[in-house]
Amino acid sequence: MSTREIALEAKESSRACACTSLHVRNAALQTMADTLRAFAPDIIGQNERDMDAARKAGTVEPLLDRLLLNESRIEGMAQGLEDLAALPDPLGIIQHEGELDSGVRMQRISVPLGVVAMVYEARPNVTADAAGICVKTGNACILRGGSLAFYSNTFLARILHDAAVSAGMPKGCIRAIETTDRSVTDELLHMRGIIDVLIPRGGAGLIRHCVENATVPVIETGVGNCHVYVHAPADLAMARDIVMNGKCQRPGVCNAIESLLVDAAIADRALGAILPALAERGVTIHGDEESCAIAVGLGIPAVLATEDDWATEYLDLDISVKCVDGLDQAVDHIARYGTGHSEAIITSDQAAAEEFLSRVDAAAVYWNASTRFTDGGQFGLGAEIGISTQKLHARGPFALEALTSYKYVLRGTGQVRA
Amino acid sequence: MSTREIALEAKESSRACACTSLHVRNAALQTMADTLRAFAPDIIGQNERDMDAARKAGTVEPLLDRLLLNESRIEGMAQGLEDLAALPDPLGIIQHEGELDSGVRMQRISVPLGVVAMVYEARPNVTADAAGICVKTGNACILRGGSLAFYSNTFLARILHDAAVSAGMPKGCIRAIETTDRSVTDELLHMRGIIDVLIPRGGAGLIRHCVENATVPVIETGVGNCHVYVHAPADLAMARDIVMNGKCQRPGVCNAIESLLVDAAIADRALGAILPALAERGVTIHGDEESCAIAVGLGIPAVLATEDDWATEYLDLDISVKCVDGLDQAVDHIARYGTGHSEAIITSDQAAAEEFLSRVDAAAVYWNASTRFTDGGQFGLGAEIGISTQKLHARGPFALEALTSYKYVLRGTGQVRA
Repeated sequence: MSTREIALEAKESSRACACTSLHVRNAALQTMADTLRAFAPDIIGQNERDMDAARKAGTVEPLLDRLLLNESRIEGMAQGLEDLAALPDPLGIIQHEGELDSGVRMQRISVPLGVVAMVYEARPNVTADAAGICVKTGNACILRGGSLAFYSNTFLARILHDAAVSAGMPKGCIRAIETTDRSVTDELLHMRGIIDVLIPRGGAGLIRHCVENATVPVIETGVGNCHVYVHAPADLAMARDIVMNGKCQRPGVCNAIESLLVDAAIADRALGAILPALAERGVTIHGDEESCAIAVGLGIPAVLATEDDWATEYLDLDISVKCVDGLDQAVDHIARYGTGHSEAIITSDQAAAEEFLSRVDAAAVYWNASTRFTDGGQFGLGAEIGISTQKLHARGPFALEALTSYKYVLRGTGQVRA
Repeated sequence: MSTREIALEAKESSRACACTSLHVRNAALQTMADTLRAFAPDIIGQNERDMDAARKAGTVEPLLDRLLLNESRIEGMAQGLEDLAALPDPLGIIQHEGELDSGVRMQRISVPLGVVAMVYEARPNVTADAAGICVKTGNACILRGGSLAFYSNTFLARILHDAAVSAGMPKGCIRAIETTDRSVTDELLHMRGIIDVLIPRGGAGLIRHCVENATVPVIETGVGNCHVYVHAPADLAMARDIVMNGKCQRPGVCNAIESLLVDAAIADRALGAILPALAERGVTIHGDEESCAIAVGLGIPAVLATEDDWATEYLDLDISVKCVDGLDQAVDHIARYGTGHSEAIITSDQAAAEEFLSRVDAAAVYWNASTRFTDGGQFGLGAEIGISTQKLHARGPFALEALTSYKYVLRGTGQVRA
């Protein structure tokens, strides 16, 4: 099928998906889980084709690791589908209820969005994950995975589709794009009236391309140039622990910190407490002149930060460090270079903390805690889809609710408007 | 100022707007209302410049009427601002509250979107309306009105800005684009990272242009190709009253009905009850072959509908009429030609009604009531901005809440992620 045929079939399918019962959707999730387990050897076989091609193409080890499917990862995918089945129904929730002056009864109830397109990169587990989330929310989904995982994704989508349909979901509810032609993503980005939302998951380049080119609605995910601001009256041991956790625990994720702001008045002591710990873990310091001077005084190597550094999400063992003249300058710096993801202040001054929390415009703002907590699981959301850095519809970690809309249902006895 | 300078000033201003107290925002609304009353003669003077130019350009009467400002319309604008001041604070609402496993306290609270751009056509009252709504929600606004109302809009925006600032709102919180250069709208449509949402209000052409070209988030408003479906077991007097109300009470609005679907099994009786009433009010019938034959039999003129008719929002005394083979065909027709605005079924069969309400994908779905109720005022929302026909963020009549986002605020005592 052409991409357009797949999309039109998904649109048609979405009308029936929206009317499926929770019982059918949960049964589909269980059947999908069972199918993954039953087909594990075949999934691994298809994945080996991808792995072979990727190795031949000289793909680097971290990417190969993301691409790999094995028994335990397949079990993880199956378990994820069962976990979804156990969650409460996101559809049919009565959000408001009332009566118009005319006596017409009104309800606002949650409904699916319709057709969800997911555009993602190497990890094939996203295929099962996204399919499951869309089944649970009564959406039809179009899956556009990375070309590296082509055989894995195609096979997974086919068996998951057939499993869902065998349990009562409509034909066409789950479809992968079965071509590696790069123009397909752009075709999806322009299918207004067919695709109700497109969610890119992957690197900054993919996300920027989708956001800048889409005419369909997009939920922007992921880029996190997160800051920790150490305010003068901070507990410096706490500041060090939070910076170390934010920078070193898992540097490649979007809620890791990329930039450290320190009040100039306490820069000597604060950087004296923090930089040696970072250096010991092999973190490269990209400092302003003041921070570099302090680093040199501590015998720690540092490179002078360029303008680019302040705007860079390193996703690696690098950090930019800047001395600021107090809260105003810290807030201004974050407004200028932050990506609206997660921002933290470390201080024992409650009034200053509240000012920071109020003035900084980001999905998650922290006082005396690590930005690493910005996560659907940590926030208790269940089945996180991504972390939104936009403000419309969904912000911060988002889950099933973000794949729903609502409709007003009105029941009358012949009322007309006066 | 250039459009870009206005937008950058609005972005800067929005940071301060977000931190204003309810007291300041309400005081600004009251001062804005007082200013409108105090400057009424000057506003009328500026409006006369627009009216003169419009008359000379041969503008049609309905447009001239929309353009006109007089004492009573200015009082209406002032009253609207006072009504906004009386509404509860849409900001700082704690939507969720809890504690992470680590003991970090979490709140999800409502915050402004940031910079709101309004692009609208002739009515200059939208200038006061939009400015007031943005002040109440702590957003900075950029107002791009129609060129017909250039002098009215420019003057209104200036005095409203100065009034708001005198009451404590930040400079730049309300700005009109002071040029009629058509390229400005396209410039606004592409200001990603500056404009947080753009809301077009006006005709179908304007809305389509914005939706298809914007890279900034847009809330799509207004186009309503609304249907009434008369199911076989319907009370035909009720059906007639609801069709007459939907078509004739105010034909130029988006919740008016444009299309009548009738079960073929009862078409003779149903159209016998409805068409004479429509004809008496001067409504032109655009029927399929079956409906036209029935109309002719009743001695009522009818024209054969073309494919275009089914997709047309007439906004006038015209209606398309089609006989269908029951609920499935009615639902399919609405899925194909509807715009997701408001759709109604008239029936005494509850099961069929519930099936229609569930299967039809629209912002508002009705059983035995007029689609004309789709309205923020009727729904009790207060300060309607428009009626959204998209599914993301806001659907159906939307008000202050749609101009807010939320942030997660987390307060800890030094927690880091394990």
